[in-house]
Order: sequence, then structure tokens, then C-alpha cells
Amino acid sequence: MKKIVTAEDYIRSLKEQGHLVYYNGRRVEDVTEHPGIRPHVNAAAMTYELALRPEYEDVMTAISHMTGQRINRFTHIHQSVDDLIKKVQMLRLIAHETGTCFQRCVGFDGLNAVYMTSYDTDKKHGTEYFKRFCDYLKYVQETNIMVVGGMTDPKGDRSLPPAEQSDLDLFTRVVERRSDGVVIRGAKAHQTGAVNSHEILIMPTQALRPEDRDYAICCAVPLNAPGVVLIFGRQTNEERKFESGLDVGNPTYGVVGGEALVIFEDVFVPWERVFLCGETDMAGILVERFATLHRQNYGGCKGGVSDVLIGATALAAEFQGTSGASHIKDKIAEMMHLAETIWSGSVACSAMGFRTPSGAYYPDPLLANTTKHNVTRHIYEIARLAHDIAGGILATMPFEGDLRSPEVGHLVRKYLAGKEGVDVEARMRILRLIENMSGGTALVESMHGAGSPQTQKVMYGRLGNLEQKKKWAKKIAGIE
Amino acid sequence: MKKIVTAEDYIRSLKEQGHLVYYNGRRVEDVTEHPGIRPHVNAAAMTYELALRPEYEDVMTAISHMTGQRINRFTHIHQSVDDLIKKVQMLRLIAHETGTCFQRCVGFDGLNAVYMTSYDTDKKHGTEYFKRFCDYLKYVQETNIMVVGGMTDPKGDRSLPPAEQSDLDLFTRVVERRSDGVVIRGAKAHQTGAVNSHEILIMPTQALRPEDRDYAICCAVPLNAPGVVLIFGRQTNEERKFESGLDVGNPTYGVVGGEALVIFEDVFVPWERVFLCGETDMAGILVERFATLHRQNYGGCKGGVSDVLIGATALAAEFQGTSGASHIKDKIAEMMHLAETIWSGSVACSAMGFRTPSGAYYPDPLLANTTKHNVTRHIYEIARLAHDIAGGILATMPFEGDLRSPEVGHLVRKYLAGKEGVDVEARMRILRLIENMSGGTALVESMHGAGSPQTQKVMYGRLGNLEQKKKWAKKIAGIE
Amino acid sequence: MKKIVTAEDYIRSLKEQGHLVYYNGRRVEDVTEHPGIRPHVNAAAMTYELALRPEYEDVMTAISHMTGQRINRFTHIHQSVDDLIKKVQMLRLIAHETGTCFQRCVGFDGLNAVYMTSYDTDKKHGTEYFKRFCDYLKYVQETNIMVVGGMTDPKGDRSLPPAEQSDLDLFTRVVERRSDGVVIRGAKAHQTGAVNSHEILIMPTQALRPEDRDYAICCAVPLNAPGVVLIFGRQTNEERKFESGLDVGNPTYGVVGGEALVIFEDVFVPWERVFLCGETDMAGILVERFATLHRQNYGGCKGGVSDVLIGATALAAEFQGTSGASHIKDKIAEMMHLAETIWSGSVACSAMGFRTPSGAYYPDPLLANTTKHNVTRHIYEIARLAHDIAGGILATMPFEGDLRSPEVGHLVRKYLAGKEGVDVEARMRILRLIENMSGGTALVESMHGAGSPQTQKVMYGRLGNLEQKKKWAKKIAGIE
Amino acid sequence: MKKIVTAEDYIRSLKEQGHLVYYNGRRVEDVTEHPGIRPHVNAAAMTYELALRPEYEDVMTAISHMTGQRINRFTHIHQSVDDLIKKVQMLRLIAHETGTCFQRCVGFDGLNAVYMTSYDTDKKHGTEYFKRFCDYLKYVQETNIMVVGGMTDPKGDRSLPPAEQSDLDLFTRVVERRSDGVVIRGAKAHQTGAVNSHEILIMPTQALRPEDRDYAICCAVPLNAPGVVLIFGRQTNEERKFESGLDVGNPTYGVVGGEALVIFEDVFVPWERVFLCGETDMAGILVERFATLHRQNYGGCKGGVSDVLIGATALAAEFQGTSGASHIKDKIAEMMHLAETIWSGSVACSAMGFRTPSGAYYPDPLLANTTKHNVTRHIYEIARLAHDIAGGILATMPFEGDLRSPEVGHLVRKYLAGKEGVDVEARMRILRLIENMSGGTALVESMHGAGSPQTQKVMYGRLGNLEQKKKWAKKIAGIE
Repeated sequence: MKKIVTAEDYIRSLKEQGHLVYYNGRRVEDVTEHPGIRPHVNAAAMTYELALRPEYEDVMTAISHMTGQRINRFTHIHQSVDDLIKKVQMLRLIAHETGTCFQRCVGFDGLNAVYMTSYDTDKKHGTEYFKRFCDYLKYVQETNIMVVGGMTDPKGDRSLPPAEQSDLDLFTRVVERRSDGVVIRGAKAHQTGAVNSHEILIMPTQALRPEDRDYAICCAVPLNAPGVVLIFGRQTNEERKFESGLDVGNPTYGVVGGEALVIFEDVFVPWERVFLCGETDMAGILVERFATLHRQNYGGCKGGVSDVLIGATALAAEFQGTSGASHIKDKIAEMMHLAETIWSGSVACSAMGFRTPSGAYYPDPLLANTTKHNVTRHIYEIARLAHDIAGGILATMPFEGDLRSPEVGHLVRKYLAGKEGVDVEARMRILRLIENMSGGTALVESMHGAGSPQTQKVMYGRLGNLEQKKKWAKKIAGIE
Repeated sequence: MKKIVTAEDYIRSLKEQGHLVYYNGRRVEDVTEHPGIRPHVNAAAMTYELALRPEYEDVMTAISHMTGQRINRFTHIHQSVDDLIKKVQMLRLIAHETGTCFQRCVGFDGLNAVYMTSYDTDKKHGTEYFKRFCDYLKYVQETNIMVVGGMTDPKGDRSLPPAEQSDLDLFTRVVERRSDGVVIRGAKAHQTGAVNSHEILIMPTQALRPEDRDYAICCAVPLNAPGVVLIFGRQTNEERKFESGLDVGNPTYGVVGGEALVIFEDVFVPWERVFLCGETDMAGILVERFATLHRQNYGGCKGGVSDVLIGATALAAEFQGTSGASHIKDKIAEMMHLAETIWSGSVACSAMGFRTPSGAYYPDPLLANTTKHNVTRHIYEIARLAHDIAGGILATMPFEGDLRSPEVGHLVRKYLAGKEGVDVEARMRILRLIENMSGGTALVESMHGAGSPQTQKVMYGRLGNLEQKKKWAKKIAGIE
Repeated sequence: MKKIVTAEDYIRSLKEQGHLVYYNGRRVEDVTEHPGIRPHVNAAAMTYELALRPEYEDVMTAISHMTGQRINRFTHIHQSVDDLIKKVQMLRLIAHETGTCFQRCVGFDGLNAVYMTSYDTDKKHGTEYFKRFCDYLKYVQETNIMVVGGMTDPKGDRSLPPAEQSDLDLFTRVVERRSDGVVIRGAKAHQTGAVNSHEILIMPTQALRPEDRDYAICCAVPLNAPGVVLIFGRQTNEERKFESGLDVGNPTYGVVGGEALVIFEDVFVPWERVFLCGETDMAGILVERFATLHRQNYGGCKGGVSDVLIGATALAAEFQGTSGASHIKDKIAEMMHLAETIWSGSVACSAMGFRTPSGAYYPDPLLANTTKHNVTRHIYEIARLAHDIAGGILATMPFEGDLRSPEVGHLVRKYLAGKEGVDVEARMRILRLIENMSGGTALVESMHGAGSPQTQKVMYGRLGNLEQKKKWAKKIAGIE
Repeated sequence: MKKIVTAEDYIRSLKEQGHLVYYNGRRVEDVTEHPGIRPHVNAAAMTYELALRPEYEDVMTAISHMTGQRINRFTHIHQSVDDLIKKVQMLRLIAHETGTCFQRCVGFDGLNAVYMTSYDTDKKHGTEYFKRFCDYLKYVQETNIMVVGGMTDPKGDRSLPPAEQSDLDLFTRVVERRSDGVVIRGAKAHQTGAVNSHEILIMPTQALRPEDRDYAICCAVPLNAPGVVLIFGRQTNEERKFESGLDVGNPTYGVVGGEALVIFEDVFVPWERVFLCGETDMAGILVERFATLHRQNYGGCKGGVSDVLIGATALAAEFQGTSGASHIKDKIAEMMHLAETIWSGSVACSAMGFRTPSGAYYPDPLLANTTKHNVTRHIYEIARLAHDIAGGILATMPFEGDLRSPEVGHLVRKYLAGKEGVDVEARMRILRLIENMSGGTALVESMHGAGSPQTQKVMYGRLGNLEQKKKWAKKIAGIE
């Protein structure tokens, strides 16, 4: 793989990749030309493009601790608290430019989680995963490829563990161990950015019991490897991407990352790309680390996306003459309050981060969970306030086709007029941006990305140190 | 107009109507055959069909106080508190059958509001609107036509009153007074069910100053009258209606009512259909009454729609094996709590209803506002909980086209499997139903239908009797 | 017992009663003269006094269905939906006069619950409880005594059923069955108004298993019966009742009802006062009915109490010159919204009430639970908003002793001045009223009175008809 | 003043101070012996005592940038982001030990705010305040005295500026300018810890207009200076402090800080203690800085106080056998979520802090406001959940006098028993701790300390950079 530097390099690399992507039941020849996928490619491409701008170099790039080279930060292993903070600053920055998910953090977090866990696995089990992984990491840093972190299995009946499902493949597993590698079968669901990534870094999806040995698999697989099939998920308002643009809201970058179901039909993985295989006791640790690293992000990217939505909402109010009303100002202030609250979470868990035995830095897991948990609430409330301020027109506005129609276009222009001097089309663009940023897929992503709310609630019980809290209370109450 | 009895009668009447409807810039030949509109026709048709079922007769029909004939309740003037309660019971009932908005309450509320206000106008101004209106009402009851209540004007710059807009037509107004009637110009926005209604009952949109005289117009206009143009609004996931069905969620009845922008290009209205013309002092009263009657409804229809969403969410949990988890049960209980809370509002404002001078009964306005205000919050929270329970698959599920695909259909079936024995297609149907009921348009309708939240907040100040509350507090605190 | 008509009669009857009341470890000689108890006596006395006012006769009294006499409504068995609605109207009315709990609804609800359940017990078990109970009810109606409904047992270890507690008395039980009656032992906790009631109507506290037979006891006991001991609970700011008045907030009626722990040390109850004894299958039904009847109330009394708090808060704002600020007006509107929401619940469950086999009317249990559940949230939010508006002075205001002090009184007057012309003492009175209505005991009562929140959540699972909701969803989604 | 090192030194210094304190209208001879004040003295004393423990040295002390000496952190000027983070860590630490407010941060924040602002004032106005202030600061660092930051004026009619009040003293002002200093008159309200502080650092309370020149005064005044009068505020359950202890909840450290109204009756201040006098343009800057520095804290101290309350609540559940119930565990997890959310705010605004021209570091003001704003909501919700879990007994529990009573003590022990083996007195202690930490004064302090919620909302408008947000939205929506 040639080193990817520019956005154009990235797009060219995808064209050449030839992976097997399905969209609405049909094979996609070129993901970079497909209207349903192209916006997500554009968003991911910004992770390359912005890294080339001198003013963002400090945030968007880093010096590799392995090679000493300047690398894209999305391939970096955090070497300090400052790196952790720069990470979330980078996410908010790109969100300001794209207004959506740019997908590349999943692999970023996977790389960091596997780095620290393969190190610990070796220490405990005498294995050699860490060295293998470092070699892989160097490859990633040098080529600057986009890796998707593959964690979530389909899971079938969620009340049953992997090995008790009626179909054993509902969690990804090793079906054959060979001298040169392993063969895996199964799938990873909700894979953000998978159709425009180069490789997938597969990790187990939950803590495992000793009898779940075949499911304790962590490995890297090129997405064009034989046996890998990607099926693109349908988004809310998916079809608008195929139009000229106004109604899609965010015409260049789309909404949310573009998720796919990635299926492994007996895919071979050579040993040098296997970073865990059978050490079930490490699965839970790896999952928790990936989850922490990923939950850390949500106040960054969603904070930035919220900023765009707040700006759009303020414009909608301005365009229709309500921006001076006290209740509108109060609601916009509330939206900002909520956005800064989730951002505070991302900053705080980063600032309280610490060094792991591998040398990689790791955000405070309790606060990372707090961050994501607030996102599952506040993004909905921000959307609700955006709807409140933007008005009913958000749900009843004519099509772009009406605006362009020679028969009724003049009527749309006449009756959608706002404050004097406001361009009707600008008003419609902003309203469509709000509609698309605040409904359906966009909301669900905030709820379930990086783990459903209950997974965070469970962590409070484990990380909240309730016993110590009881001791303080007893002492203060005068109880021996 | 021949009397409409069955759903088929209704559909036939729409075919014959020939009104001027635009959809995405193009004229619609037959609204009943248009995939983007047909689901809404089906939903409205249920207001006819269910009225014919003997078990629902008591709720769905009433005895006209004018003719003594049994009529569809949607054309009835409330004669008692019991009528007010039956109204909201009817709404919840139809919502259970359709899972969506069936549109006909807007005209129902318009009829009642104009009935009581034209009576009062006559008393105050010595006019003859009430008799005219009674004639019109008899016509509506006898033909059983569907009337849309037209209140919301486009409003342009919301910081300015009608007569100070840069375009005087941004509020609907009388542009000519003739011996045989008036000519009106302007538009009504967000008109639920307009494209499949027969007439529109136009009302002013806000309290008016004396200088806004031309805007004080209330009248009935057939929607196929010369000069009336309807432009259908684009819904979230609008395009899915054009498919075979699974992904649309609610294939038969759609989501929300199907709103339109209704434009009046110098439309003539004969005097016998004019029920207010120039009496600006009555505009605010009429608006408040329509608003109260309409806000009364929202715990009925949205309560019923929520019941369907709760059922769908419980099924989603069951299908994936999580229905036994305590946090899932708690969240479903919370959804029911919220649905019953909004329902309680509708019942309470009805039970506290009272007789107006015209003889028509009117719900308690303070409690009707309370009802709608809770809807603007609780429907969002119900949707949020539905997302929480249903899982990320809501946002990343493959297309129906993938399920049907000979190439990847088997993979979709394999990896979307839930609990053993659950049909994958059933699971997908339920998830699509949830997606479509809980995003975009559906949410916005709950926010702005029957008036934006601030319009309710403002009413608390007027109806909450704060002075009396201060007196009680002073007495109890021992202040003279 | 002589018939109690006036507030004076009531107070005299308490003086003569001679029951065993303890307050802070010491016997209380006369509850009507004790500063810690007197305010609660005054509040309960209003249930007598207001019933004598002609303008309230319709709401405060009823015609006994047994004797045809006009009786205090608190002793009435609901004969119609109208009775159910009048009940909650009465509660809101008295709350407006007292600003606090007037306690008498507990017994009122107990009488109605036992009435309908003893009827059903007889039908099922061939017993004679209903006739006995009717005799008792006539006595209550004729004497107009105050009865406290005794439900909540101390419960010890809440994870264990009655018969498995380490101390068998932690749930009230029959320790001896005699030819002339039974002997009971145990206690009832949180008994509102017990120290100023005449009798207690004991009911089981939860559904029982067959082996809990001794705990299936319902009976009436005079509170001055041998073996009955009452220990008064300490309220927040209890001591201020002993002062001259300003700092206590509500000097005449106090805050909350004044709860007591009522202990039964082997108390004899004759058979004619026993209404359930051993029929364990009826215990759960009786509990659920009492709970429903009691939860029905909370939007009435707490709605009325909230009205007083809203009035006080509006005055506090007015006194300090902030009542014109838009955020203050918005918050007061929000307080009204919340108060009307809980009130709507009480009205709705009443309006949806229905006839039980005994002839007594019963509110809709699902909606009654909804009502109470909202109270557990909204009263806290109302208090929070009151604090927000009233300002920090609520927590830092000098003592009344400072105001009256010759040394610093003038400084208090100077520096606590508000808007010109506002009397400083009036301002202090209102702030103290808010403080005392919105903290500690007052909040907890809203949370746990009539059952803790989880008891309502559990009822949604039972009463919410989830199976029917699933059916609607399946049909609409097109699933067979 | 001799250097204060130990808690004993601190208490001795207060005894010797002889300032004029009033409590309930009477002069207090010795604040350290007065039961109503002593707990607050104990809490403040912990800021001395904990600083002597080697394990806390890093957090509780710092090296003075002026003298190079190790000083108590409460007298330190922040020299780095790390100092800002240590500040909030220190606050959470002391809260764990005391369970309440320890008061000393107000002066700490005042010192830092005046440090940076006097520097800027000199730069702008050519004055010499900064040097004067540095001399004062050295004195504070060397003596280790406790300084209260005096900001909030009584404000009278809040709709009027200082110079338009009917009494010109309702904002503290200079009434005389002399060659050796100024004479001030007025008062500062809600002064936390004032009665047990040594000096007060007076600052203006809001931005000022040029005509408010006399109100632009910042200066340090010993609290025993002639003309200074302190009136202690009455807390919720104030009287329980005078008892033996169980019912007071937190017997050693009390609840909240103990606030006072501090009055200046023509107090003379020499020029060397005057740090602003007439430069009205600097008033708003000083206020904003103090507010930011003070709002930074609230996730630290209230986070720590919440930890204690969470521990107490978990114990209450454990004692009564409910700790295993899923809804209890969920609610405790929620309490932890809220506590960590406010803590995240304090960490984040510290981590994003920056250097001011004076060299002192300053937390991010937008995030500091976010922190405090969340406190005004989450502390109430934490209290509500504590009430939910602890049960109704919180509001109805007998007095400690009942527990100790020879007549009824055995009954209290018998019927307040919880899970087998739990000591009844321990249970009562924990319940009383919860009651006192979660009601009245404790809540109000979270609402209004460091500024009322609206003051934070206003800051979002100023600091939220809405114009930039609009630009991002326009660009993404494709609007030029």
C-alpha cells in the first residue's frame, strides 16, 4: 500500500481496493462514486485533508513514538495526557468542518486498545502479540490507511452467551487454526466507515468465559480479503443523497458515518495479524479499554456536531425574525449548555488520563463513561430544542423540486419568505440541515455508538467505588 | 356532494374532486393513487370505516343536535362533557388502528370553534354569522365531508404584525369585498390532511389589532375552488412510501398526517360561507378556542400512537432476547407512564369542560394547554426510550433490498437473527416501524402541531390565576 | 362519641380522648395544646370548618347512601364519577386554605377501600365482613370522627416476607384469636394525622402468601384503646413551631401532616370491628384499592399546595423587583405547568372511574398511579424552581430574633429591603413560607406518601396492557 | 497576626479576634464555643489540618510564587493548569472528610481574581493596585489567615442599578475618601464562613456604569474592624446543632458553610488595603473573574459532598434490605453519574485553563459556567434520588429523644429494626445524615452559591461564540 497523504490519495486508494460492498441488494462498483456512500467518503477524507493544513498540524498530527516520524494523529498511540486532550480537540475541530461523523476514530481507538492490551497479554501469558501488533501499527502509521475497529457482533439472542446461540456464528469466531494462521467466520455489525476503510481490526465484543475460547480473537483483516462482504445500512432520508442537494441537508458530508454489516465467510488471517487468540481472560479487558477510549470521544465529535446544529438553529430563528425573543435566546443558551456539558466530559476524562504498563496513555474510564452517558441524553434534548426553535416548517416544507418548479416555484418563494432580505433558498437549506441533523439515524447514533446506555450504567457500579463512599458516610455520621 | 358513508365513498369523492395538488414540483393527477399520499388517504379513511363498526358506534358517532340524525362524530358539536371525553377516546381508538395521524380532528375543532365564536360575534356585533355557519354545519354533517381547519399563516417575519410585513399576503387576507362575497389571497401552512380533504375552514392565526381588519377573515372554501393550490410537504423518509413496504415502517397508514401548503390566489368566497369578516376583536377569541379544542386532542391521538410505539418496542426487545432485563422493563414502564400522563391531560381538560353561551361544550383551556405542553416533551422522551431499547440496529439495518437479494439475502437472514424462532423479517418490520415512528417528521409534529410550546407557556400566564395564588400565599404566611 | 360538627367540637374531642402520645421521648398531655402538634390539629380542623361554609357545601359534604343524611365528604362512600371528581376538588380547595396536608384523606380512602373489598370478600368467602363494616361506617358518618388509615408496616428487612422476619411483629399480626375478638401486635409507620385522629383502620400492607395468614388482618381500633402507643415523628425545622411564628413559615397549619409511629402492644379488637381475618388472597386486592384511592388524591392536595407555593414565589419575586424578568416569568409558568399536570392526573383518574360490585365507585387505577408518579417528580421540580426564583436569601436569612433585636433589628430591616414600599417583615414571611414548604419533610412526603415510586412503576407492568399494545404494533407493521 | 499552622491555632485565633457576631438577635461571645457556629469552625479547621498530612501535601499545599515558601493552597495564586486541577481535587478531598462546605474557597477565589484584575487595572489606568495587593497577599500567605471573599450586595430592588436604589447603601460604597484611606458603608450578604474568618476581601457585585463610581470599590477589611457587624443566617434544622448529635446528621461539621450578613457601618480602610477605587470599567471584569474561579469549584466540593450522600444512601438501602433490588442499584448508579458529571465540569474548565497577563492561571470561563449550571440541577436530582431510596422514614422518624427514652426507647429500637444485625442507631444516624444533607439550606446553596442559574445562562450568550457557530452551519449547508 502506497502512503496516503492527501484526500485524493485516499479516494484513489478506495477505488483500487475492489472490496465487496452491497447497497440495497446490489454490488457497488466504486464506493467513491456511489451517491449513497460518497458523502461519507468525503467526511473521512477530511481526516487527511485537515492534517495537511499548517494551522492544524499540532492537533491533527503527532510524532510517532516508534518511528519519530510525523504521522496522522488517527494512527498515533497516546503518549501523554496532552495527546488525550488533543485527540478530543481534533474531533471537535473536524466536526465543525463536516457537521457529521468522520468515522476514523473507531480504528484509532482500536489501535490504542489493542496496543495496551496485547502488551498486558504478553506479560500474563508469555505470548508475542505486542511485537506483532507494533509491526502492524508501523504499517498503519506509514501507509496512513484507514482502519475500522470491529467490535460489535450481531449477538442473536442477547440473553445467551456466544457458545450457546442457536447459530454459533452470531459472534465472530475462529473456525480453523492452521500453521500459517486462522480462519474466522461471523460478522461485525454497525461498522462505521467500513465501506470506505482499508482494513478492519477485529476485537471480541464482550467478556468471555473459558468455554468461549474460539471467540477470543483479535486480528487485522484487509477489507478486500476473500470472504469479506460488506452490506451498507440504510439511513434515514437515505434517498435524498441521490438528489441535487438542498433537501439532503449536509450535501457534502452527509449525516452520521455510514454504517455497514461486515461479514466474514471463512476468512483467512495470517498469524502476524493475530493479536489475541484464545486468551479469554483478556477479552473483557480489551473490550473495556476500547469502550473507554471510544466513549472519551463523544463530547468531542458530538460537541462539534452540536455546535453546527446550534449555529443552524440560531440562523433559522434569525431568518424568521424570532432571534430576539427571550425564550428563543434562553433555549439557544440551553443548547450551548448541553453541548459544553458533553464536551466537558471528554476533556475531563482526558485530563484525568494515566499511563498504562505499555506506556500508552488511557483516559479515566469512569469519566469516559459519564461523557458518553450524557451524550445519550443531551443530543436528544439539543435536537428537541432545535425543533422547538426552527418551527413546524421543519416537518412540512415543500420539496426542493417545488422550489425549482416552473409551475409553483414562485409560490414557494413567496410563502416561505422570512425576515426581509433573507434568501428563501438559504432558509430552506438551513431548515433541511436541521431536519437531517436532528432526526432518525443521527439520534440513534448518539444513543448506541460506543455502547448502549446500560453498558455505561453498569460501569458506574464497577468503577464508582461505592464501598469507599460508604466509609466516608459512616465516619461523618459517627458510626464505627 | 353525495353523502360519504364508507371508506370507498371517501376515496371515490377524492378522485372526483380534481383539486390542484403539487408533489415535488409536479401536478398530482389522483391523490388516492399517488404512493406519497395514499397512506394518508388510508388513515383518514379509517375515520369513516371505524364509524360503521357497531362496537365503536358510541364513540365514533353522535346524534346531531341540529338534525337529530346519527352523524360521524368528526362533524359533531360537543353537547356535553361526555361528548368531550368521547372525542379523545375516539382519537386514541383510531390511533391504535392506524399508528399515525388521521387528520380529521383539525376540521372537527375548527367547526366547534367557529360555532361558538360566530354565536358570540353575532351577540356582540349584531351580525348573522351563526345562522350561516349552522347552514354550513348541516351541509357538513349531511355530506360527511372532510374539512381541514386552516389556521397557521406563513407569517414571514415573526417579529412583525400582518399589516407590517413586506409582503401583505404573508397572512391570509381579504383583497376584495364584493356584493356576492369576498376575494381572499394568502396561504395556510402545515395543513394536515389538506390534500385529501374536501374543504378548508379558514380562520385567522392570531389576535389582531384594529388596523389588521383585512386579516380578520373566517370562511369555508372548497379545496377545488379556482385559485386554490396545494403543495405537499416532504416528510422524513418520504421516498420509502414508493417501495414495496417493509422499510416504510407503517406501510398502510404512513407517519404523521401528510401536511401541505395551501395557497389562495385570489379565491372567491360567497357570503354564505363567510363567518367572520373584519371583526378584529373576535380573532383572538376564535384562535384561542380553536387552539384549546385542538390541544385537548394530543393526549388522545399521541397517547394512542405511543401505545403502538410501546408495543413495537416491547416486541423489539422480545425478538432480541432482552425483554427480561430489569432495565428494559423499567424503561417500558416509563414509556407507559409518559403515555398515560399525556392521556390524563386530554381526559382532564375534557372532564373539566363547560358550556359556552352557544350551547357547545368547551374543554378547560388551562388543562388543554397543559396537555399539549407535555406532549412537546414526552413524545420525544418516549422516542428516546424506544431508541434505547431497540438498539443501534435501528440506524444501521440493511435495506429491504438486501433482504430480498439473491446474493446477500441469506446473509441478512443469518446475521439479523434474534431469539430462536423469531422471523427475521418480522424483526425488521418492527424495527422499521420504530424508526419511522420515532424520528424526524413524527417528532416535529408533536412539538408544533396545535401550536408551538411557547404559545402554551404564554397561556399559563393568562389562565393560571396568579393573583389568586398570591392571595392564598399571603393569607397563609400571615401577611395582611 | 358525640357528633363532631365544628372545629371546636373536633378539638374538644381530642382533648377528651386521652390517648398515649410521645413527643421527643416524653408523654404529651394534650395534643391540642402542644406547639409541635397544634398546627396539624388546626389543619385537620379545617376539614370540619370548611364543611360548614355554605359556598363549599357541594364539595365538602355529601348525602350518605346509607342514611340519606348530609355528611362530611371525608366519611362518604363514592357513589358516582362526580363524587370522585368532587373528592379531588375538595382536596385542592382545602390545600388552598391551609397550604399543607390536612391528613383526613387517608382514613377516607381506607373506608372506601374496605367497603368495596369486604363486599368482595363476603362474595368469595361467605363471610359477614361487609355488614359489620357498614355498621362501623354508619358510626363514622354519624359521629364524624377522624379515622386514620393504617397501612404501612415497619417491614424490617424489606427483602423478606412477614413470616420470615427475625422479629415476627415487624408486620402487624394477630397474636391471639378469642371468642369475642382478636389480639393484635405490631406497628404502623408514617401514620399521617394519627395523633389527632380518633380511630385507626388497620389494613395489611402488601399481598400475602397463604402462610402469612396472621398478617391478613383488617380492623378498626380506637386510638385510645389499651396498648396503643403513638410516637410523633420529627419534622424538618420542627423546633420553629415552638417560636412566635415568622420563621415557621406556615404558622397556623404547619408543613406536612405530622406523622406518627403507631404501636399495638397486644391490643384487643372485638369481632364487630374486624373486617378481614386470615383471608390472605384478599390482602393484595385491598392494598391495591387503598393505594389507588390514595394515589388519586395527590394531584389535588399537592396541586393545591403547589398553588400556594407558586403564589409565594411570585410574591418573593415581586418583593425584590424581579417579577418582570422574562426568565422569572418563564419559570413561574413552568411551575404552573407542573402543578396543572399533576392536577390533570387526579381529574383524569376520577373521570375514568367506574363502579365496583359493591356499588362504590373507584378511580382508574392506571391513571391514579400515573398521577402519584408525576407527583414524585414534579413537586421536587416545583421546589427547585421556587428556590431558583426566591434567591440565596432563602438559605441565609437572619433569624426572626435578629429582626426583633433592639441591637441589630434596624440593620436587618435596612439590608433586607426589597422594592420600595415592600414591608421587610412581609418579605421575610414569604421567604420563610417558601423555605418551609420546599425542603426536607415536605419533599419526602411527596415522594413516599401513598407508596414509593417503584410501587407505581410496578403497577404499569400490571395495568398497562402491554400484550394488547404488541398486537396493535404487529398489525400495523404487517406481521401475522 | 501570628502564623496559623494547626487547626488549634486557627481556633485560638478566632477566640482572640473579638469580632461582633450576632446570632438570633444576641451577641456571640465566642464563635468557637457556640453550638450553632462550632460545626462550621470545625469544617474550616480541616483546611488547616489536612494540609499537615504528608499524604495530602501535594494537593493541600503549594509553593508560593512570591516567596518560594510552602503555603496552604487556599492562599496560593494558580501558576499552571496543574494548579487549577489540584484546586478542585483538594475541594473534593476535603468534602470527603467533612461532608459539607468548608468555606475557604471564597477568599481563595477572591485573592486570585483581585490578583489578576489589579494587574490589568494598573496596566490600563496607571494605578498601583497590583503592588499593594501583592503585599497583602504575602501577608495572607505568611499568616495563613482565612479570608472571606465579599461579593454579593443586598441589592434591594433588583430592577434598579446601585445609584438608583431608594437607599444608596444597598450596594456597598465609598462614603468618604480621605488622605489615609476610604470609609465604606453597606453590606455583603450570604457570606459563607464570615463569622469564622479573619478578613473580608470586598469586591463589587456587578458591572458598573460610570455614574456608579462610588460602588467600584475593592478592598480588604479585618472582620474585627470598628463598624463591622456580622449577623449569622438561620439554617434549616439549625436547632439540632444544640442537641447531643444524632438528629443533626453531620454532628461534627454541620451542613453548608454557615452564612452571614456582613454589615459595614462606616468602616475605615487604609489605602494600602484598597485595590480598586472608582475604576468602574474594571468592576465587571473583576466580577466575571471571581465568578469563573468560584464556579470552577462546584463540581469539586459538591461532587465530594455528593459522594458522601451517595455512600449514605447506599448504606440506608443496605440497612433495610433493599440494596439488591435492580431499581435501587440503577438509582445509585444514576446518582454517581450525576456526581461525576459535575466533577467532569470542574476538571474540564481547569484543564482548559490559561495564563492571564498577570501570570496567574484562569479556568476556562465557559466551562466553569457549565459546571456550576449543572450543579444547580444535579444536586437536586441527587437529593431526590436519595429520598427515593431512603424511604418515607426520612420524614417521619422519631426524635433521638424517643430512642433514648426509658419509656419508649425499646419500641423505637424494635420497630425501626432493619436487616438482621443492623444497629438501629446506626440506621437512624445514616437517615438523619441524608435528611440534613438533602433538604433546605443544602439545596439552596447548590442553586445560588457562586451565582444564580440565570447568571450562568447569560454567560453562554457572551462566551458561546454563536457567530462562529452560524458560520460553520452556513458553510456546511452550502450558503454563501
